[in-house]
Amino acid sequence: MSLFEKTIGEIAPVDRALIPIVQSRLDNLTKPQGSLGRLESLALQYCLAAGTDCPRIRKKLIYTFAADHGVTDEGVSAFPKSVTAQMVANIMGGGAGVSVLARHAAIELRVVDIGVEACLDNLDGLLRRKVKCGTANIAAGPGMTEREAMRAIEAGIDLAHGAAEEGASLIGTGEMGIGNTTPSSALFAALLPCDVSSVTGRGTGIDDETLARKVRVIERALDVNRHRLGSPIEALAAIGGLEIAAICGLTLGAASRRIPVVVDGFISSAAAFVATKLCPHLQDYLFYSHRSGEAGHDVYLQRSGIRPILDLGMRLGEGTGAAMAIMIIEAAIKVYNEMATFDSAAVSRKGT
Amino acid sequence: MSLFEKTIGEIAPVDRALIPIVQSRLDNLTKPQGSLGRLESLALQYCLAAGTDCPRIRKKLIYTFAADHGVTDEGVSAFPKSVTAQMVANIMGGGAGVSVLARHAAIELRVVDIGVEACLDNLDGLLRRKVKCGTANIAAGPGMTEREAMRAIEAGIDLAHGAAEEGASLIGTGEMGIGNTTPSSALFAALLPCDVSSVTGRGTGIDDETLARKVRVIERALDVNRHRLGSPIEALAAIGGLEIAAICGLTLGAASRRIPVVVDGFISSAAAFVATKLCPHLQDYLFYSHRSGEAGHDVYLQRSGIRPILDLGMRLGEGTGAAMAIMIIEAAIKVYNEMATFDSAAVSRKGT
Repeated sequence: MSLFEKTIGEIAPVDRALIPIVQSRLDNLTKPQGSLGRLESLALQYCLAAGTDCPRIRKKLIYTFAADHGVTDEGVSAFPKSVTAQMVANIMGGGAGVSVLARHAAIELRVVDIGVEACLDNLDGLLRRKVKCGTANIAAGPGMTEREAMRAIEAGIDLAHGAAEEGASLIGTGEMGIGNTTPSSALFAALLPCDVSSVTGRGTGIDDETLARKVRVIERALDVNRHRLGSPIEALAAIGGLEIAAICGLTLGAASRRIPVVVDGFISSAAAFVATKLCPHLQDYLFYSHRSGEAGHDVYLQRSGIRPILDLGMRLGEGTGAAMAIMIIEAAIKVYNEMATFDSAAVSRKGT
Repeated sequence: MSLFEKTIGEIAPVDRALIPIVQSRLDNLTKPQGSLGRLESLALQYCLAAGTDCPRIRKKLIYTFAADHGVTDEGVSAFPKSVTAQMVANIMGGGAGVSVLARHAAIELRVVDIGVEACLDNLDGLLRRKVKCGTANIAAGPGMTEREAMRAIEAGIDLAHGAAEEGASLIGTGEMGIGNTTPSSALFAALLPCDVSSVTGRGTGIDDETLARKVRVIERALDVNRHRLGSPIEALAAIGGLEIAAICGLTLGAASRRIPVVVDGFISSAAAFVATKLCPHLQDYLFYSHRSGEAGHDVYLQRSGIRPILDLGMRLGEGTGAAMAIMIIEAAIKVYNEMATFDSAAVSRKGT
């Protein structure tokens, strides 16, 4: 049995017998019942995912996977492909958005080369899991073979399992890859399914003309790969990306070890979407961090009945949304663990 | 000239000449323009309020004002009045919602007795500014005299000025007072103005019958005090509360020293609303932390064109919403200060 198959098999449905136990503690904290709103439901979801009524958030990690995309040859991005490698260096140097926000939230940030075109040998601390030097142009054929996609997925699983061994309590996803909204939109269009234009946005800030071209490029990608979209894995290989496959694997690997996962934005959602198609139980382990400003994200969220935690108009990716949401989830766990109960604080109850 | 009048006179319009300077820095950070969404607009608002393009968040404070309300005699709350004093002890003991969340966000929490009925002499560290032992029943006459309201306002101003001398960079508001959604709803109804029922909610969790009574009680309060609603100060005295007056003063005092203020939820919004009626410039200094789950808050936010930062269904008050939003605002300032620019990180720009 492959690591992938074994991992899927290890993802258990959450134990709903925990619900009344956790809810009882929430209801005995010194506040009107339900008055901490989403913080209470986040605490409950965390407990269910982690499989405990005594949750502890110790190590918080974000994995930012970097990869390149051959489809940038079609002129679908506002930034040149070389920016992927430049931004990997910037993230590791502490100057990128996710670097700042992870530091603010006391999250350890790990950057993984899963498929950057450039050689990144000079970067200390970079996790080297390069499967290939970027995908081929998905508008001209499959971006990867299924075997390559599976290698990227298993790299994500392996990292999650390593994090579990280190005692990680919460894992956020992130990515850096010029052009990667294009395969993400393609995956949403193919698998939701829906019109390409309804899930295609401006990415890093393309103009109207480029947006129209991007939609046509994605339509071509779906057409040229139409015989390769029969399963989520086939679609991921044909029209996805290496970082998307790795994030897909990371979510599965984390859930198989009962580590809740915080899904970043548009691209990470595409990865999580593929992963939930492979394993529907996974959904209970996922926190969707925010509603991205990238047009199309809300189509996915609404169609899937997902209420993200934050709605701050962010659309940077990298793991920035995950970093922000991790602060909120940690607040929820602290409320659950650290608030006094009516009895312990000698506070009178409602109507007494 | 009174402290109040002097303070109002010191609140200057923000300097819009800072906008292009701050925006230029935001646009040169290593991210697509505008891709950090609300974090960018929060950083800009903070800079304008603080009057600098080099913002630093050092000391963060939340002031939680506690007071009692004679209108609880009408049976408008789910909890007995004695809970105000019990919760003051719980907040100071570290077990209340705001205690946990302030600790999580590294905010110093200060609790102020501005009008609790009980004697709280035994609580070390409590700031003692008691104006009177709770308001009178607003459904039977004015809750306070204008002189008492002004004393509470000036206590808030004085605390803000003291915080400025200590070097505070961000001040959050909070309150604890059984029954205090009732005067808050009364103030919204009188000053927006609008129907009482549209701005009256379930507070700590009252049933349908109590909610109907609460609406009638507020209607009586507005009727019996109808000749005392001619100015915001008169209304605050007649149908408001001591903690509401103190928060009103805190916002004015902070703005007069260019310290941005984070407004908590429903009750703090009522106080901020009165304060902006007294000084419209104040609005630029206020961050509205969240959309409260208390029915009626959204009526105020929508009517005033305010977009709160968070929407987590919280309705606990105490300063819990302010604590959560302060984490977000601090993240925004760190993004502004700590992200690399395209030049400093040698990252290629859009379209190059």
